[in-house]
Order: sequence, then structure tokens, then C-alpha cells
Amino acid sequence: MLSSPITLLLNWHVTTYHAPILLAKTMGFFEAEGLDLAILEPSDPSDVTKIVGTRGVNLALKALVHCFAARERGYPVKAVATVFDEPPSGVISTSEQAIKSVVDLAGKRIGYVGEFGKYMLNDLAMRHNLDQGSYEAIRVGMHGINALASGRVDAFMGINCIQGLELEHCAGSAHMLRIDEIADLGCCCFCSIALIAHDDFIVEQPDAVRAVCRALQRGMHYTVDNPHEALEHLKIHWPRLNTPHFSKSFFCSLPYFSRHLENVSRDWAKVASYALRLGICQNTDLADLYTNEFLVSSSASCNITTRGAL
Amino acid sequence: MLSSPITLLLNWHVTTYHAPILLAKTMGFFEAEGLDLAILEPSDPSDVTKIVGTRGVNLALKALVHCFAARERGYPVKAVATVFDEPPSGVISTSEQAIKSVVDLAGKRIGYVGEFGKYMLNDLAMRHNLDQGSYEAIRVGMHGINALASGRVDAFMGINCIQGLELEHCAGSAHMLRIDEIADLGCCCFCSIALIAHDDFIVEQPDAVRAVCRALQRGMHYTVDNPHEALEHLKIHWPRLNTPHFSKSFFCSLPYFSRHLENVSRDWAKVASYALRLGICQNTDLADLYTNEFLVSSSASCNITTRGAL
Repeated sequence: MLSSPITLLLNWHVTTYHAPILLAKTMGFFEAEGLDLAILEPSDPSDVTKIVGTRGVNLALKALVHCFAARERGYPVKAVATVFDEPPSGVISTSEQAIKSVVDLAGKRIGYVGEFGKYMLNDLAMRHNLDQGSYEAIRVGMHGINALASGRVDAFMGINCIQGLELEHCAGSAHMLRIDEIADLGCCCFCSIALIAHDDFIVEQPDAVRAVCRALQRGMHYTVDNPHEALEHLKIHWPRLNTPHFSKSFFCSLPYFSRHLENVSRDWAKVASYALRLGICQNTDLADLYTNEFLVSSSASCNITTRGAL
Repeated sequence: MLSSPITLLLNWHVTTYHAPILLAKTMGFFEAEGLDLAILEPSDPSDVTKIVGTRGVNLALKALVHCFAARERGYPVKAVATVFDEPPSGVISTSEQAIKSVVDLAGKRIGYVGEFGKYMLNDLAMRHNLDQGSYEAIRVGMHGINALASGRVDAFMGINCIQGLELEHCAGSAHMLRIDEIADLGCCCFCSIALIAHDDFIVEQPDAVRAVCRALQRGMHYTVDNPHEALEHLKIHWPRLNTPHFSKSFFCSLPYFSRHLENVSRDWAKVASYALRLGICQNTDLADLYTNEFLVSSSASCNITTRGAL
């Protein structure tokens, strides 16, 4: 019998923060680990949790806040790495019609991706004494920018270095109201992107999980240490990324790539409190939610480079 | 011979992010650990590193970025905890004369605290192709707000939930240009506040270090879990904090208090790269720079509470 490739389902169509993963693929880092790894893209990001949670794929990416929802719904998944740290995210609008504070939401139609964006908006409104009936939350999936362009929404929720730049590119300028600042979160870690796997896959193929993490770490190191070379490589092997907009977004995203893929316990604890507050989960036991045991730990000084971003 | 109290030198005159420390003092948490701990305030924050680095005091607070400078200058100090995580910081100005991007620095006089603020400004200018001669950096110590009020500077560097609110309080509104966003840092961890000690003190009195950390953790837990009670207690025992401005700043600072005082390796690595880039240090070996060995580690789920500010 032929062996199946290991499947890794992205959380979004291919975008900037997937760069180190794409690079690890086309530079043969997975292959060098003896892995046949297939990268898949979702057409609806809301499908991802249930697919990996029912073993439709081996691995997937998902924001930290979704990992709590996954466990709550009975999907036995666990984060084995964090690939993208704390990207600033919030309510994105054009600079002309800028939403600069929670009260500006009144009378507006706000696009959100899948499910929890609406919870976040309602939480913001509640914390700032804004009537939840005074704005409209509209589910737009991956199409926030189109929904704005077509006039279906007045603003949409997204990540600054991805959708914020996208809007700037289309509309000339953009404004973002950072959710971490107005929701008293301390940082944007609820939006950090984790690599998650089904518990059974982890138990059955721990060596494969370890090998995937090693290859990804290699992709991260290469990307952060050699951003220009990494970008050129990506543009050749993923032609649809060969746009000025992607290049700009790539460089803006560099500070958030996680070199060692470490799950930061402080961040998980913060997101747990947030998820609890949003009503996304009841159980905030973190013990089974993430692990760093599959990562190559390095002496801290190896983190340092004189090149790359930061 | 009478025993000496353990001295803890703050990094600044008493301000919001010292709340859990003050609370641990007046609620007797240090005493309960058998400690006689004295809290000292500096008149010039630039003195702190050399005082603790020459054993003038036992313990001190200092931002992460200064810890690299301390080692570089031969002061054998080590961070034994991080007490305040990633407070958003940047260039603070009035909303009327808002500095909204690096180019707006041109023609302006910018106040900075002690030494490295100037390096940060120059780094921002270089990264954004702004001539370093086009703005003036003026050392203002702890007096940024007065320097602005007296017209000596047009803006000053500070933390949003402290000096940003202070300016808002005085001038009606304030604007901050976040340094992490424009310097590609990924987060404001360079401004996180660490508890540092001389290596010899750590070797001679490890139990005292451990006891101080335990008492501080208790102060943190109390503050985050019972912010209203904590504030009332502080207002009674530190009457000069009994102002509407302090209360506002206290609640805005809650998300940044570190419940478990953990040094986050990711953050230290990021700040190491930044310090290297700024020319603050040559040596980025993190091995001797911080340790978590004196902290009570807790199961991650203990981080969670349904009360407090996330």
C-alpha cells in the first residue's frame, strides 16, 4: 500500500504568515525529514476546526482563541506549536470613514470572519456601554475587503499586516482600531496562529509531529534570517504571491514569525480568560490544550541574529 | 547586630505599575514571608542600574532593554522576574499636535527619559529615511509631561497607560505613536519591567529572593483578582495615589500585570535583537541574564480567573 502524505490544512487561503511553511515545502525541508507533506487551503475558514477535529486532516492552523472553542465542542485537538505571534488585529476601516473608538461602531455594519468576531464586537460594546443593537455584525468569511468595496459593510475585522495593508493597497489608506487596546487584553495573542493536531495523530505518529516541527522551525529560521532571499524564492515557487502587495505584507509580518514555534504559557493563559469572558468556553484547563514537547528547544542565545526583522 | 532590611529600588517614582508591590508591602505579604523589605524610589531613573549593579541595593526594577546595557557595562545583575508585561509605549503628543508617523518627528523636539530613548528615536529615523538632524532629542528624565507643558518639548517618550493618560488628564486628549509598530518589534516587550538583583545577592540569599517573588506573586494575584479592593487599599495606605487620575491609570494597567512574574524567553530574545540593533550591547547571550528558578511555578490552569481584567 502506498503511504499517505501528511496533510496540513491552512486556516486561510495562502497568505503572508504562511510564508515559512510554504518555504519549508518548496525548499525541501519536509522532504529532508523524510516527510511527504501536503499543504491544503480551506475555502471557508470555519471548516478547519471540525475537519482536523474529526481527523479529516492530520494538522491544521488556527488562531489561539479557536483552540478553546475546539476543545469545548469535543474536538480532541492540541496545539503543538505557535507559528505567528500576536499579530495586531482589530476593526479595519478606510481612513476617511475611520472607526477610531468603540462609540464609532454605532450605526455601522461590521464584517467578521467566522463566528467569534461577533462575540468580540459584542464584548467591546458591552465594555463601553454601547447598545448591541446600534451596529450590525455581518459574517463575511475571507471576503472582508470585497464586502467593504461593494458597500456591504463599513468596516471589517482583520489583521493589520494582512487585511489592513490590503485595504491600504486598495483604498490608499486604512485605519485599525486595535482590539487588544480597547478590550483590555494586554496583547493581541488571541490572534496568534497555532499549529494544531488531533490527539490520536499525536499519539500514533509522534515522530512525524516532531519532524514537521523541525522542518517548520528551519523554514522560520530561513525566513527571518534571509527575508529577501525567502521572498524571492516564494515569488518563484508560488507565482500568485508575486505582487507588490504581498511583498509589503511579508516584510510587515516578519516581526510576528515565531522562530522557535514556542507556545507561550502567558499568552495561552490570557486567551483562556478572554475565551471564558466571551462565552466561547467553560473549561479553561490548559493542561491538554498545548504542548512544547515536539519542539527542538534551543539555547536562548540561538534566538539571536543580527539579520532579519527586529 | 540588627539585621538590615532587604532594599527594593523602584525604576521610577511610585506609579501605577508598582501597585502590586506596594500592596504586597502594606498587606503584609513580605512580612508573612519573614522579610523586612524596604521600597525605595529613585530621584533619577538613570541611577538605578549602577546602584543595584554595585550592590547599593539588593533588588531593583528596570525595563528589559536596560538589563542588556547593565551586563554590557559589567554590572553582574540578573532578572529574577518580570512584573509588568509589554506595556504599549511610544512617542506621546497632544492630539492637536499629534505625531502620527515617523516623518512627523521632523522639526520637533522629543523628550526621552534617560539614555536609550535617543537610540530608539535614531533607529526609527534611520529605518524611515528621516535625517537625524531634523529633530531634536532632549533628555527629560521623569518629567516628560512638565517639559511638554512648559513648551520645552513637543512630544515625549513614555508608556500609554501611564504618561499617555497623564497627558490626556492634563491636556484633555493625547496621541501615542507605538514604537513596536513602527520599529518592527512585534510587541512592546522592550518596555516590560523586570525585577533584577546582583548576582552575589542571589548566590548569598537565594531563599530571600524566592520569598520576595512569592510575596510579589501574592500581590499580583490579589491585584488582578480584586482590582477594586486593591485600589481602595492603595488609596488608604499611599494617600498620594488617591487621585482620579491614578485610578484610571490603575485600571488601564491591569492587563499588563504579570500574575506569575514569568520571564518569557521569546520576549527576552526579541529585546536582545533590538538591543543589539540599537548598539546597546554586543553580547546577546541570554543564559545569565534572567532566570525563572525563583518563581513558584503553577499549573497553567491556575492562571485563570473569571474576575479581573483578563
